[in-house]
Amino acid sequence: MIEPFAHHSLLDVEGLTRADVDRILDTSEAFLQVSRRPVRKVPTLRGKTVINLFYEASTRTRTSFELAGKRLSADVINMSVSASSVRKGETLQDTCRTLQAMHPDVIVIRHASSGAPNYVASKIGCSVINAGDGMHAHPTQALLDAFTIRRAKGTLDNLVVTIVGDIAHSRVARSNAHLLKLYGCEVRVVGPRTLMPAAVDSLGVRVFDRLEDGLAGADVVMVLRIQSERLEGALLPSLREYARTFGIGPRTIGSAKPDAIIMHPGPMNRGVEIESLVADGERSVVLQQVEAGVAVRMALLYLLAGEATDTLAAGEAH
Amino acid sequence: MIEPFAHHSLLDVEGLTRADVDRILDTSEAFLQVSRRPVRKVPTLRGKTVINLFYEASTRTRTSFELAGKRLSADVINMSVSASSVRKGETLQDTCRTLQAMHPDVIVIRHASSGAPNYVASKIGCSVINAGDGMHAHPTQALLDAFTIRRAKGTLDNLVVTIVGDIAHSRVARSNAHLLKLYGCEVRVVGPRTLMPAAVDSLGVRVFDRLEDGLAGADVVMVLRIQSERLEGALLPSLREYARTFGIGPRTIGSAKPDAIIMHPGPMNRGVEIESLVADGERSVVLQQVEAGVAVRMALLYLLAGEATDTLAAGEAH
Amino acid sequence: MIEPFAHHSLLDVEGLTRADVDRILDTSEAFLQVSRRPVRKVPTLRGKTVINLFYEASTRTRTSFELAGKRLSADVINMSVSASSVRKGETLQDTCRTLQAMHPDVIVIRHASSGAPNYVASKIGCSVINAGDGMHAHPTQALLDAFTIRRAKGTLDNLVVTIVGDIAHSRVARSNAHLLKLYGCEVRVVGPRTLMPAAVDSLGVRVFDRLEDGLAGADVVMVLRIQSERLEGALLPSLREYARTFGIGPRTIGSAKPDAIIMHPGPMNRGVEIESLVADGERSVVLQQVEAGVAVRMALLYLLAGEATDTLAAGEAH
Repeated sequence: MIEPFAHHSLLDVEGLTRADVDRILDTSEAFLQVSRRPVRKVPTLRGKTVINLFYEASTRTRTSFELAGKRLSADVINMSVSASSVRKGETLQDTCRTLQAMHPDVIVIRHASSGAPNYVASKIGCSVINAGDGMHAHPTQALLDAFTIRRAKGTLDNLVVTIVGDIAHSRVARSNAHLLKLYGCEVRVVGPRTLMPAAVDSLGVRVFDRLEDGLAGADVVMVLRIQSERLEGALLPSLREYARTFGIGPRTIGSAKPDAIIMHPGPMNRGVEIESLVADGERSVVLQQVEAGVAVRMALLYLLAGEATDTLAAGEAH
Repeated sequence: MIEPFAHHSLLDVEGLTRADVDRILDTSEAFLQVSRRPVRKVPTLRGKTVINLFYEASTRTRTSFELAGKRLSADVINMSVSASSVRKGETLQDTCRTLQAMHPDVIVIRHASSGAPNYVASKIGCSVINAGDGMHAHPTQALLDAFTIRRAKGTLDNLVVTIVGDIAHSRVARSNAHLLKLYGCEVRVVGPRTLMPAAVDSLGVRVFDRLEDGLAGADVVMVLRIQSERLEGALLPSLREYARTFGIGPRTIGSAKPDAIIMHPGPMNRGVEIESLVADGERSVVLQQVEAGVAVRMALLYLLAGEATDTLAAGEAH
Repeated sequence: MIEPFAHHSLLDVEGLTRADVDRILDTSEAFLQVSRRPVRKVPTLRGKTVINLFYEASTRTRTSFELAGKRLSADVINMSVSASSVRKGETLQDTCRTLQAMHPDVIVIRHASSGAPNYVASKIGCSVINAGDGMHAHPTQALLDAFTIRRAKGTLDNLVVTIVGDIAHSRVARSNAHLLKLYGCEVRVVGPRTLMPAAVDSLGVRVFDRLEDGLAGADVVMVLRIQSERLEGALLPSLREYARTFGIGPRTIGSAKPDAIIMHPGPMNRGVEIESLVADGERSVVLQQVEAGVAVRMALLYLLAGEATDTLAAGEAH
């Protein structure tokens, strides 16, 4: 008999135990194989409804969730809510309670405001998955990163993981730091001081100013996207200057371990935070991360919406 | 043997007899249960095609129809046509005849121009459902309202129903007034004179100037949305003034019957036409209306696209 | 045993042999019947993934592909990429490699740049269908046109086909000219000199200045859409002038054979390049073209994604 998953929603990685994460990653492994088969579909979530409620455009993440839902045979509904329609429309709470009344099994929400998914989850009864909220959390990204690392390195335990770039504005860094420490990883951050969060020490990471020092002995190098908006805010001198100091290329990557893997959540600014020779090189697992994204999201939809009702469904006439 | 439904399209409620409405509501009852089951799907419309052709943005109504179609196993196609693409594009008739050539079973159309769905239905052969046209009609809203009232009050017969707010610009009021009178309801409208249609008498409703008088003895209170655009047109003094005179709150609702239910088609302007204490109170059926929306739309898709071909489909090899 | 289709992608019609085209059209014939049945769906591509990647808005073509995929039971994902998100986003190659990592079976791409689909196909492993690229090619349009002609005339062999209008800016003309010559058709083009491509002779077509001469003896008249943008570029004197000189109406069509059919890829500018009496007349096959579009796209998705894996899938437990 399968034990039910301990969580009703996935809002951040902070609430997950190591056993939870292991279970998600093991389940993802099975679903990775589904996407690789000629028939990329299982009937697991037939008759379940997944709503993708996106207040921020994110074609990549939305597509990944949509594909995950459809490959599980769920009915998937996309709702893109533009900023303008929010202004004249109803409150987030009313929107979510309205959706709830349509009996979805899972609402996947992406929102520019930190905490929006937590707020929604506190108001409605169905499962909620946070697909990125402001600068707060992006738990499915952290989980797909962990899955990719585990597959590439054979383990998650006690690795040295260096995150390079805009730590202050990245929900990726925050979620990853938390999750990797469950496995005893040493998590390091490197980047310009202007792109470090004020409370960087509270993340429990080691902070480095020089790329070379941060990369020394690293098993995993996570390169973050530099958003050109940061230039306007005077947080960065120039993209060229950034590339020279913190860009990951064939030369700088030499400081990491010889078998270090290179990750990037995408989309990449080639020539800025990462050079093509590295992005497309043998040690890059950037595309494996994308593949992992679908698998991990299938696992989460299954764990949140599928298991509890499996026994019920089995009793029904088909 | 089941008698086929007497209508090929649903353009407004005016053409429906009491027997038609009873049939739609009875069918909706069955489909309401489908959405409440763990497996929220039936194979009824497998191999049928539903096209949602929306010339006006309406995420809520579109989602409700999309979900209705998918839970019946139909293939659902969403087409959002923006004003700009209409300008350089083809005529409504050409668009619909083009779609018709793709063999949809039902086209659900929402359009800013009154009469657009009727025009379309006169030009093409497939079933058409009006999902709201200008200030003309919104028949699925009227039907879901009737369904919600019948479930809450146990009957539709001889109730006193008071509609409060912007009667002039509301297709909800128009469609509801017609439908409720089939059941002998006394339909009342209350609101500022500037928001009453010129020909309000032709609706066959009782018009009230004072909220208290309009609510006296009401079994059902339907609160309409106040659109802030009306302020600009000088049809309204201020939202605060409106709220004080016609807003439904714990105090004003006291004029209605003690067991009166409160309805709102959404989205709500909390603090304007309705106060949160009422919107979220025990007598509010606002979320039941949303749930009813999916059920009623499933019933309509089934009655228009499903029944006639059931016998044909039964003869086919599977 | 069925021989596998000789192509992995469909980028243009130039690479197709007559046998290839015959096979596509014969397969389309079978799928046309599927859309005409009461149950418009076959399980052929169950578990396959089709991604519609549209960099240009084209509701009609996107809907046709979406319907084709769904009627084959594939999972269809729509991705509309607006110009703005391209600017701040990743390169076309990175987008497509990202999608590829999600294991689609077919990517359908529409792009404003000529050659974009070819570029994509050279970079990724899954099948690619060109749904229109700049002024280069629109192979599914040419195939659906050929299918429509074959059904209407009983054959494709040795017909006289006259294409009228904006030859310079039309990918339709280019793709059609190539394909029809496989069947020994005489392909003619007629239109203002300003709307003829510089290298019109390289198309292997006969060029006519006067509509009457171009239509004389024609079996098929293909009318192209005049885009009002051409007026601004001073390529056209006025729409009225164009209509008078090259518009197809009851009078001008008299020059063609009495049983000539009239085609238009849509959307039509009624009163400009075509008059309603012709567009809606007995000899018009404009709506048959739309119907053919779904059938031909079903055939292509089947030939590219279905056949090769049929044997694999047969070995799987279901």
